[in-house]
Amino acid sequence: MKGGMIIPEKTIERLSVYRRLLETQPVKRGGCVYSRQLAEMVSGTAAQVRRDLMAVGVEGHSKRGYCVAELAEAIGGVLDTPEGARIILVGVGDLGRALLGFIKAYHARLRLVAAFDNDPLKIGRVVHGYRCQSVDDLAGVVRSGKVEIAIIATPAAAAQAVCDHLVESGIRGIINFAPVPIQAPPHVWVERADIATALEKVACLVRQRHEDPHPKNVLTEEQ
Amino acid sequence: MKGGMIIPEKTIERLSVYRRLLETQPVKRGGCVYSRQLAEMVSGTAAQVRRDLMAVGVEGHSKRGYCVAELAEAIGGVLDTPEGARIILVGVGDLGRALLGFIKAYHARLRLVAAFDNDPLKIGRVVHGYRCQSVDDLAGVVRSGKVEIAIIATPAAAAQAVCDHLVESGIRGIINFAPVPIQAPPHVWVERADIATALEKVACLVRQRHEDPHPKNVLTEEQ
Repeated sequence: MKGGMIIPEKTIERLSVYRRLLETQPVKRGGCVYSRQLAEMVSGTAAQVRRDLMAVGVEGHSKRGYCVAELAEAIGGVLDTPEGARIILVGVGDLGRALLGFIKAYHARLRLVAAFDNDPLKIGRVVHGYRCQSVDDLAGVVRSGKVEIAIIATPAAAAQAVCDHLVESGIRGIINFAPVPIQAPPHVWVERADIATALEKVACLVRQRHEDPHPKNVLTEEQ
Repeated sequence: MKGGMIIPEKTIERLSVYRRLLETQPVKRGGCVYSRQLAEMVSGTAAQVRRDLMAVGVEGHSKRGYCVAELAEAIGGVLDTPEGARIILVGVGDLGRALLGFIKAYHARLRLVAAFDNDPLKIGRVVHGYRCQSVDDLAGVVRSGKVEIAIIATPAAAAQAVCDHLVESGIRGIINFAPVPIQAPPHVWVERADIATALEKVACLVRQRHEDPHPKNVLTEEQ
């Protein structure tokens, strides 16, 4: 973090996206990229991209743009925990298993410490190389493993109790995939990842537009 | 939709969440619920809840609050397509498979018409009761099945090409689980469901707060 400066949530989101674009898209013309190229890919403005990249301490060259390698490293300096962010997952159902696979593929930046479930049939099983443990062991693992981040991938009915358990154990950030909101104290960041709402919302918006194909507000991804 | 009224995106999101809370949480004291109870569960205000519920044409009783059954039905009248929204999924990897399982559990409100992949090893396989088809057949299925919504669950590098293919085929709404932004014309709604960004963001925010435990802006789920 540059001199302890607090970077806003939305800037962090965009930095994460820029880096993934630098890593996955064919933008490496001569190892350089222009702010307007990145802007186009995220449907944003070049001025916004330049402001975001100033937050990580990198300035572009007026002719060549930004050096891709330097940019990716500078973003990593802000986003990444050097030894990898330590994470646990609760709820080893279909979605939980998919998320374990995803995190495994993501290796270097995220370190999954343990996965938990309360189903005796799942406890002890190995999924994507991670052994599923009993939720009874959760608090001990969080404390001894200095884990601060947890993913909730339980059914809706279990989510709040799991959240309370995580908060008591010392977790500071939660990504909630359960299809209900959860409540946590202000020192715990809760990020909603509500797939059911995303699906229902898109279905409803598409249907609304059929009934009014020219709404006054043109809806875009950025809104 | 009440008299063709356009309901804003954020209201639709909240309605989806209210309904899921009504269905899953023990709020059914006498079959009624107060706006302040719903507000507490979503960390919102009672006034906001009442405004949202007015949009679906339901008014609460000052003493008893809202009738849970009536409320769920009114929200369904706005959110749901009577015969179920018709959806396809592209990318039958780990995440795609989990999403198929999720949609299957969601049955009545979403109808998965087909799942597609370009991997010959996956084509023809049955996953959660859905047979995986070749992406070469996508346009035909979308047109003949009158499908308007698609889920992208491909790797990052394939997402834009899949998006272009979907748009050409007539898709009007996309939920993008690939970890890169995609660009679509204005008549197509793109909803981002970017798990990689969610994970990186929470990890970064938790770390920032360690370095500045008392930021001026207290971060909450609602921001």
